[in-house]
Amino acid sequence: MEFTFLGTSAGTPTRSRNVTGLALSRSGPKPWYLIDCGEGTQHQLMRTRYSVMQLRAIFITHIHGDHIFGLPGLLTSASMLGRTEPLDIIAPPQVRRFIDAVIENSDSSLSYPLNFINSEAPDFYWQDDHMAVTNVALSHRVACRAYVFTERNLERQLKQEKLAADRIEAGPAWGDLQKGKDVLLDDGRLLRSDDYTHIPRTARRIIVGGDNDTPELLKEASQGTHVLIHEATYTQDVADRVGPWPQHSSAQQVARFAQSAKLPNLVLTHFSSRYQSVPGGTPHINQLAAEALQHYRGHLFLAKDFDTYRLEKDLKLNKLDGH
Amino acid sequence: MEFTFLGTSAGTPTRSRNVTGLALSRSGPKPWYLIDCGEGTQHQLMRTRYSVMQLRAIFITHIHGDHIFGLPGLLTSASMLGRTEPLDIIAPPQVRRFIDAVIENSDSSLSYPLNFINSEAPDFYWQDDHMAVTNVALSHRVACRAYVFTERNLERQLKQEKLAADRIEAGPAWGDLQKGKDVLLDDGRLLRSDDYTHIPRTARRIIVGGDNDTPELLKEASQGTHVLIHEATYTQDVADRVGPWPQHSSAQQVARFAQSAKLPNLVLTHFSSRYQSVPGGTPHINQLAAEALQHYRGHLFLAKDFDTYRLEKDLKLNKLDGH
Repeated sequence: MEFTFLGTSAGTPTRSRNVTGLALSRSGPKPWYLIDCGEGTQHQLMRTRYSVMQLRAIFITHIHGDHIFGLPGLLTSASMLGRTEPLDIIAPPQVRRFIDAVIENSDSSLSYPLNFINSEAPDFYWQDDHMAVTNVALSHRVACRAYVFTERNLERQLKQEKLAADRIEAGPAWGDLQKGKDVLLDDGRLLRSDDYTHIPRTARRIIVGGDNDTPELLKEASQGTHVLIHEATYTQDVADRVGPWPQHSSAQQVARFAQSAKLPNLVLTHFSSRYQSVPGGTPHINQLAAEALQHYRGHLFLAKDFDTYRLEKDLKLNKLDGH
Repeated sequence: MEFTFLGTSAGTPTRSRNVTGLALSRSGPKPWYLIDCGEGTQHQLMRTRYSVMQLRAIFITHIHGDHIFGLPGLLTSASMLGRTEPLDIIAPPQVRRFIDAVIENSDSSLSYPLNFINSEAPDFYWQDDHMAVTNVALSHRVACRAYVFTERNLERQLKQEKLAADRIEAGPAWGDLQKGKDVLLDDGRLLRSDDYTHIPRTARRIIVGGDNDTPELLKEASQGTHVLIHEATYTQDVADRVGPWPQHSSAQQVARFAQSAKLPNLVLTHFSSRYQSVPGGTPHINQLAAEALQHYRGHLFLAKDFDTYRLEKDLKLNKLDGH
């Protein structure tokens, strides 16, 4: 599974960080999934391998502008490019009203169907051939969801010894069994794929958080999760000065939670625009990392725009070379 | 008067050209005026001298997305920066509904008042201390306006000989007359500023067009205008292939009009994303210039993002060094 940060700044863009957007795929750029869509997301995409033509679904964590104001431009640009494939938008109900009002008042029309799916439905579940997606309610100023992406349809391996023992000869039946299909033989025997194949590895799982002041809400979902991508808007000293109103997390809070939940990989993002990346800048973005490292002993990463990560099949998370 | 292009691409952004936006001021970056606000305008502004804190008014030519989708982010970012000054938005009525729906559905609020002014009112006129603005109805798929910016309150010079002849001694009266104020002297004489001062130069005037397939609609407004900024979405051959539906202008059309109207300076912008700027790219952006030059003998410019121009008091248009 791969993901690329399209924006890592909270609230407003900076010269080096756009507002929130994340491209995620199982492997390579098609199909892919977009999580949040701040203003300028379509501009950022032009500098990646991802195209709106291969976008399968958009997942919106919550309705704040820095997470949705890129939708009008992205959706209408896909139309100008001639997209015809339906596009799923998993989002709070207000997003549908927002898009409807945008289209109505800007003389826009779309060349493809939008399927709005309510992210706040209690039984929310979404899947395609590659991914199963659930979500978790977070704690923020408005309803907000983290999305849990788990890969589906893992490669099966044939149990060669059992096939031999049961005298099932190589042929089309083997291929069907490997694809997960049960097979009825000419001699009347029904072969169950689950009996003759096994899945030799663990399904990879990534949680993409939204804005949230209570990381502990992700405790249950963190079981069996290999990567948590979570906001860390402030260092703890700044969070204390700002007070609880914005309902964001500090690096310390998220790190403590990730340590207690035994999450092997933690990627922090959504940094207040006050944090500087240039040498000598103050407060410096590295303070967020330093704070998190005091509380978390797994693999810690601080996201930058266009950083691409790959969660390998062996469950190691690698940061790939930048663009 | 100065203006900086924030976007010069039609419909969709490219890697080197954003969608439409233009910053205009009488002198320096405050106050200033924004004409159109495509997605990413706030991002472009971060690379100029212009700040949303000193923005006096936004003029929207028409409701298409590439001219308005940057409004939500720009307006809410100004709020996050703590703006309190009222902001005028001169736009078609749909823009108010668009902004209202955005604010309602994104849990947004603004720290300053927005004054919506209907750009389609038949008696439209706007002014502040620096600028008088009228508009002209264009021909496009939706209602669209060009804005005509004329500087106001030009520097007056005292008529020294007349002051001496009428025995009006140097003092506060001179200053008031020079500011355009009439003065009542202690001896009962009423001095009219217009009698004792003159304005030694012509008021500068710039037309900023919107999307338009009939440049001739600007004929009357072009009298006394020193710069026309107008879309030239296509070369004529492409316009012929595309057909009339998009209701845009070709470079040839605009150039012919500017020549017939004797406009001294013509700046073309809003180019179809098919035109390339890299050497050898085809079709090349220079084809638009070559075509226009066949029909126009004034000063021709093709806009690029971040290009800044100054219309000097002597009515010469200079392109300043890039950023």
